[in-house]
Amino acid sequence: MIYLDNAATTKPSESALKKAEIFNSEYYFNPSALYRGGLDCAKEVKKAKESVLKNLGTSDHEVIFTSCGTESDNTAIFCAVKRGSYVTDKGEHAAVYKSFCELKNKGQTVFFADLLPDGSVDTDKLYDYVSNNRVDFVSIVHVNNETGAINDINEIAKKLKEINNKIVFHSDGVQAYGKLPYKLSKNIDLYSISAHKINGLKGVGALIKRKTLSLAPYIIGGGQENGLRSGTENVFGIKVFEYAGEERYTVLNENFNKVTALKNKALSLIDKSIFKVISSDNASPYVLSVSAVGLKGEVLMHILESEGIIVGNGSACSSKNPFSRVIESCGYDKNVLNGVIRISFSPYNTDDEIVKAIERLNDNAKKLKGIMN
Amino acid sequence: MIYLDNAATTKPSESALKKAEIFNSEYYFNPSALYRGGLDCAKEVKKAKESVLKNLGTSDHEVIFTSCGTESDNTAIFCAVKRGSYVTDKGEHAAVYKSFCELKNKGQTVFFADLLPDGSVDTDKLYDYVSNNRVDFVSIVHVNNETGAINDINEIAKKLKEINNKIVFHSDGVQAYGKLPYKLSKNIDLYSISAHKINGLKGVGALIKRKTLSLAPYIIGGGQENGLRSGTENVFGIKVFEYAGEERYTVLNENFNKVTALKNKALSLIDKSIFKVISSDNASPYVLSVSAVGLKGEVLMHILESEGIIVGNGSACSSKNPFSRVIESCGYDKNVLNGVIRISFSPYNTDDEIVKAIERLNDNAKKLKGIMN
Repeated sequence: MIYLDNAATTKPSESALKKAEIFNSEYYFNPSALYRGGLDCAKEVKKAKESVLKNLGTSDHEVIFTSCGTESDNTAIFCAVKRGSYVTDKGEHAAVYKSFCELKNKGQTVFFADLLPDGSVDTDKLYDYVSNNRVDFVSIVHVNNETGAINDINEIAKKLKEINNKIVFHSDGVQAYGKLPYKLSKNIDLYSISAHKINGLKGVGALIKRKTLSLAPYIIGGGQENGLRSGTENVFGIKVFEYAGEERYTVLNENFNKVTALKNKALSLIDKSIFKVISSDNASPYVLSVSAVGLKGEVLMHILESEGIIVGNGSACSSKNPFSRVIESCGYDKNVLNGVIRISFSPYNTDDEIVKAIERLNDNAKKLKGIMN
Repeated sequence: MIYLDNAATTKPSESALKKAEIFNSEYYFNPSALYRGGLDCAKEVKKAKESVLKNLGTSDHEVIFTSCGTESDNTAIFCAVKRGSYVTDKGEHAAVYKSFCELKNKGQTVFFADLLPDGSVDTDKLYDYVSNNRVDFVSIVHVNNETGAINDINEIAKKLKEINNKIVFHSDGVQAYGKLPYKLSKNIDLYSISAHKINGLKGVGALIKRKTLSLAPYIIGGGQENGLRSGTENVFGIKVFEYAGEERYTVLNENFNKVTALKNKALSLIDKSIFKVISSDNASPYVLSVSAVGLKGEVLMHILESEGIIVGNGSACSSKNPFSRVIESCGYDKNVLNGVIRISFSPYNTDDEIVKAIERLNDNAKKLKGIMN
């Protein structure tokens, strides 16, 4: 199998799983328990937090472990501001986008900024809106999960705070953490990350919070995570996340360069007479969105699957929609939207896999086109 | 080590972990993905749901997988009723209790029913309140996590619906699922369970919902779990939960009898001149709450720990409080409250372990008493 849907989820790291095994076999205590075993588990959770902050190059923030990126996004959006005026963009993952729709349903003022054709936020329109309207909360995705477009969130947060320093700024960093080299500036008040996108386990995420920001908890109960996220801590999952993160960050730049080479190889081989490339040159190399214009991406995906090649057709998280809301917001018509294929890389993919996958992609698209004409 | 804090958390089942391993090594796909691997994972999640419903002996309900018991409780409490009048009791786990406090803070009408000395709900007072007031939502814990008191939730739900058939009834079943023999009646609208209390993993829970009950989602995003709980499904954790549940339910009655024998052994050996037994005879055998009256339970806990015996001192989830809010609500004074020790069993504990643990408990309490006098 050639797995090229790494933006949907990744294979959990065997070495991280092995290293964390002890938290199921021996140190399975409840971190809230007051005996040594419990306290030791609590310490291990603390270590995992320090590791995340080190990876993000920040000492201005703290970490709240959650059950997923979606919960992190929900917590930021529903708990940082009591009520007010909210701004996001049309390129957000459903976890942010649908939460903003919910705010709107509840009568809050909500504005969705437009996208540029590559899926990045039209910052002119964003700044323009924020300059002319009262805004309390802004959420801008770091890396667009469908096109890979990178929003310069440190710069955006800085500009927004120059316009209005009371704005709370959140970013969904699920497709950035462990992939891109960057440091989290203190202008970022809240930042969501997820374990299973970087070879950690599903069911683990984190919300990174500026230390001095006041935040209400979303999940209420026993007061775990300094009262900010109740529920017994998933120590095993948290440690796998820590170890998988370490594996990524130890060779972050090497991985980045390797994946960039894989993406460029794919780009150089893909048949431009059939495929329109949606991702821009300066997108995250981990995501390559193309469209087999006039064909059905889903059909192509299934043919490739039958040959052992796994690619995505848009965000797995919204795969029940007829076509991608995000790519539509980039300004493409139905012919392009229907043909979208998302190829998303891992540092563990090989050059040979890419050559084979793109060859089969080209070949099958050509055949399909022949049948249709 | 003799581990007797199984109500706080349990050791994950090695066989369940082994059986589920394949969902990390091979079937690690995103269940929302439209290719076969994704669809297969979605099917596996569906199978796990069917297993839970079978265990609960119901075909009137459906399963929503969540990240923990606390999230399940929060979802039930915050999403089943838009606003109105809420009733619970003073014996609830913090996940329910603190959520009701939050409702109160937000200006909703909230009533906390009194407890009887064993920690069960004073149903006379409960029915009395519900008969004389408009009530929209009631939450009564199935098994009190500190005393083991069993509330007959099927009977309570039936009575409540006779009084007012529009009431939505929820129960926190975290300490009951996989331990007590019972069937979930359709008068129970919502029911919370957790994996890590029955040798599953931390970070997995479920909310059982009556099929015909309308419920808003608490975590919003990609629309997983039929739109009722967004976020990529934790397939591995869900399968471990399924397998651990199967292991429990295959021998549920045998386990129940075995644990009853362990509890009775402990009860027969415990020095009644030092310890007051708080749990009643008809409590869940899985939890035995006693108090070394006049001594500090926490000190005793630490001494036992140094001898390799792990017991709890009240709910691990609220261990930051000076003493237990729940036992206090049973009507005990400070002398009793300070001395509380919770011994909670697993079917994997042995007779010898209990003999040894109670011998050391008696001996150390006696010594401690000697030092204090």
